Amino acid sequence: MTVIPNLNIVPFVSVDHMMKLVLRVGIDTFLRELADVVEEDFRRWESFDKTPRIASHSKEGVIELMPTSDGTLYGFKYVNGHPKNMKEGRQTVTAFGVLSDVGNGYPLLLTEMTILTALRTAATSAVAAKYLARKNARSMAIIGNGAQSEFQARAFKAILGVDTVRLFDIDRSASEKCARNLAGQGFTIEICDSAQSAVEGADIITTVTADKQYATILTDNMVGPGIHINAVGGDCPGKTELHRDILLRSDIFVEYPPQTRIEGEIQQLPADYPVTELWQVMTGEKQGRVSDRQITLFDSVGFATEDFSALRYVRSKLAATGLYTELDLLADPDEPRDLFGMLLRCEAALV
Amino acid sequence: MTVIPNLNIVPFVSVDHMMKLVLRVGIDTFLRELADVVEEDFRRWESFDKTPRIASHSKEGVIELMPTSDGTLYGFKYVNGHPKNMKEGRQTVTAFGVLSDVGNGYPLLLTEMTILTALRTAATSAVAAKYLARKNARSMAIIGNGAQSEFQARAFKAILGVDTVRLFDIDRSASEKCARNLAGQGFTIEICDSAQSAVEGADIITTVTADKQYATILTDNMVGPGIHINAVGGDCPGKTELHRDILLRSDIFVEYPPQTRIEGEIQQLPADYPVTELWQVMTGEKQGRVSDRQITLFDSVGFATEDFSALRYVRSKLAATGLYTELDLLADPDEPRDLFGMLLRCEAALV
Repeated sequence: MTVIPNLNIVPFVSVDHMMKLVLRVGIDTFLRELADVVEEDFRRWESFDKTPRIASHSKEGVIELMPTSDGTLYGFKYVNGHPKNMKEGRQTVTAFGVLSDVGNGYPLLLTEMTILTALRTAATSAVAAKYLARKNARSMAIIGNGAQSEFQARAFKAILGVDTVRLFDIDRSASEKCARNLAGQGFTIEICDSAQSAVEGADIITTVTADKQYATILTDNMVGPGIHINAVGGDCPGKTELHRDILLRSDIFVEYPPQTRIEGEIQQLPADYPVTELWQVMTGEKQGRVSDRQITLFDSVGFATEDFSALRYVRSKLAATGLYTELDLLADPDEPRDLFGMLLRCEAALV
Repeated sequence: MTVIPNLNIVPFVSVDHMMKLVLRVGIDTFLRELADVVEEDFRRWESFDKTPRIASHSKEGVIELMPTSDGTLYGFKYVNGHPKNMKEGRQTVTAFGVLSDVGNGYPLLLTEMTILTALRTAATSAVAAKYLARKNARSMAIIGNGAQSEFQARAFKAILGVDTVRLFDIDRSASEKCARNLAGQGFTIEICDSAQSAVEGADIITTVTADKQYATILTDNMVGPGIHINAVGGDCPGKTELHRDILLRSDIFVEYPPQTRIEGEIQQLPADYPVTELWQVMTGEKQGRVSDRQITLFDSVGFATEDFSALRYVRSKLAATGLYTELDLLADPDEPRDLFGMLLRCEAALV
C-alpha cells in the first residue's frame, strides 16, 4: 500500500481513524513512541524554523496557526481555545493539522488533531518530567480534571511510572469522570476537596485548568521542596495558573522563550527573567534537576515542533495500519499548466 | 439540508466538487459573484484583522499560511509556490483553505483552493482593473500563459468586457494551450512571438509568470500612455517582473502595503515610496485612474482577505448545491470534557 497513490490525493485521518490508530498501537505504546519522537525533535531544535504561533484573539477565545519546518517537512496545526465552548457541548480545544513536503509544497497528511493534541501535550509533559522530576516520583496531583487530565495521567504512568493520582477540580463531577476513566488501569486514585489537599504528598503537580484569565490555582504555601510543577493550562496572554511567588522559588524550564514570555506563567515576570530551554536540558547543554529539594517548573504552552513530531509520528503509522482515507484535495491536471483545461474537460464530461 | 449537521462534521469541498460547483454556477457568473464579494470585503477593509502572510521559504519554493478575520468569521489559506513543480507534473501553486466561526473556533468549511485561488486571483485582478483601467479597455496582453492565464482572460471578459487577448510565453506551447482553452468563448486571440509584440495595441497588460527570481518581463519602452498593468506573477521576496523605470512612471495600487513591500514589484523601490491602497479607491477615499494617459499599476501579490471572500462565497453556495461531503474532522464526545472516555468507548465497541 502506498501512502500517496496519486498527486491529487492527500491521506486523511479522521477522528474515528485516529481513535482506532491509538487503540491499535495501544495507548501506552502510542504515548511512549510519540514521546520519543517529541524528544528526538527537541534534540535537533536548531534545525527547525521557529516562530511564535499566529494567534487571532477574540472576546470568546483564540484561533491559532502553529507552523514549523525542519527543511524537509513542513507542519502546521490549526487549534482553537474557547473556554465557554464546554457549556455549549463543544470542545474547549479542537485542532487539525497538515504535514507537507518542503521540496514541492504538497501536503502529505491531513489529520484530526483534537485527540492527537491531547496525546502530544501529555507526552511532552512526561518527557519534560523525565528530566525535571525526582527520579522516584510516583504520585501526581492533577488540578483541573477536564479533557486533558486522563491523558496526562496515562503519559506519566507509561513514561515515568507514576501510579498515584490525586484529583481536584472546582467541579467535582469532572474529577469523578476522570477517576472513572482511569479506573482499572493500575492507578491509586484519590478525589480531593481542594487543590491544597490534592498536592499533599504529591511529587509532581500538574495544573491543567481552562479559564481564560489570571487565576491562582496554586499558592506559594502549597509547593514544598522537591516538587516538579507541570503547568499546562496557562496558554494564552492573560491566562496563568500559579502565584508569582512560586515562580520566584522555582527553576523554570520552557519550550520556546519568545512564545512562553507572551503566553506562559512567566508573563508575570520581567522579560529578561532567566529561564532554561528544555531542548538544552535534553542535549546536556544545560542542567535539569540538580537536587532533591529543588522546585522545578515546566512552564508549558505547547509549541509547533511538538505538533510536527505528532504529525510525523502519525504519518509513520499510516502505511502499516491503513487507517486513513484518501482526500481529493489537490487539483491534478494531466498537464500542470492546464488547470483551466481540466475545468473544460469536467464540463465536457458532464454534458 | 443543513450545512453543519453534527458538531464533529466539517463540510469538505473536493477538487471534483469545486469544478462541479463552478460549472453549475457558470464560470462567468462565478467570477462576477466572487468579484462582488471580494469588492464588498475590500470596502470594509478596516473591519479585518490583517497580517502579512506567514511564509516558510526554502531553496525550491515557499509554503505560506494566510489568515484573516472580520471578527465573526476566520479564514486561512495554505498555499505553496514551487516553480520547479511543473517539470515534475505538479502544480506550481496548490492550495486549500478553512473558514471558521470566531465565536467557538470550529471550522465551518474545508475546501480545495487550487482552482478557487485561480478564480479569486482573476476576479481580484478584474475588480482592480474596473477602477484602474481605461473605461474603453477591450484588449489585454497576457505575458505568461500558465495555469492562471485563462482565468485572467475569462474574468476580464466577464467583468470588463475585454474581448481581445494577445498571448506571449517563452514556451510557445503554453500560449497554444491557452488559445485552445479560450477558443469559442468570444475572444479574438493572437499568439505573439515576444512580449514586445504582445503589448502592441493592448489597453491592459497582465504579467503572470512563475519564475522565482528577478526577471524583466516588461521593459520601460514597452509601456505606453494610458496602459493599465496588472502585475500578478511577482509574489515573493526576490521575484519581480517589471523594470524599475516602469514603476517610476506609474501610479501604483496595492492590496496590503506591509505585504506588498516585501513581495511585490515595489520591493525594487524605497520603503516609503508612495502607493495607494486599492480599498481606498473602492470606497472613494482615494482616486484611481484620473486621466486616459496615466499609467496605472496594480502590484498584486494576493492577500488573505481575497481568500476569505472566496471561502465565504463558496460556503454560501453549499446548501443550495449540496456539492460537498462531510468530513469527520472534529472530536465530538457527548460530554466535552470526556475526550478520553470517547477513546475508551471506541475501544469497548471494537472488542
